[in-house]
Amino acid sequence: MSVVLINAFEVATGKEDEVIAFWDEANVFLKTQPGYISTRFHRALTPESRFKFVNVAQWESIEAYQAAVQNEDFQALAQKAVGLAEYFPGLYEVIRDDHI
Amino acid sequence: MSVVLINAFEVATGKEDEVIAFWDEANVFLKTQPGYISTRFHRALTPESRFKFVNVAQWESIEAYQAAVQNEDFQALAQKAVGLAEYFPGLYEVIRDDHI
Repeated sequence: MSVVLINAFEVATGKEDEVIAFWDEANVFLKTQPGYISTRFHRALTPESRFKFVNVAQWESIEAYQAAVQNEDFQALAQKAVGLAEYFPGLYEVIRDDHI
Repeated sequence: MSVVLINAFEVATGKEDEVIAFWDEANVFLKTQPGYISTRFHRALTPESRFKFVNVAQWESIEAYQAAVQNEDFQALAQKAVGLAEYFPGLYEVIRDDHI
């Protein structure tokens, strides 16, 4: 069963462009990893949103995602994200899926 | 341009079933409203996730979404959700969309 990573970013003021640049660099790595399926990166349209950015990605399994982010190359890359935002990642299953 | 509603739920312990029941009832209403496109409701797979549930829905516009949730029938329904969870909704645009 594929899983969904949802990662909400609470971004420090003025750091938005750096966050996007980091996300792009991280994605270049993550998309090469086994089990990666897709990702969408969302930017808030309304100023009152607590989370300025939210990443929603599909991976083939929990294990595939964890192997990718525990990879030492990714760990080195992730150091660049420290101080840009507070991150609230979680792995999810889809329990309702409705479309008109 | 369609917009994405992302709503993260920080759920009080033991309230998970009530949250799902509320979500189902809310969706019966929301899917009848002008501008609704689709919705996915996600449940956390890992216990350390801060947000036990995350809703990701597509609407045709900010205005359509706001009209739906400001509707007095929805406002009455939403009273049932008080005390079940803390909600962090935001409206988003997709700025990156990658698929292998």
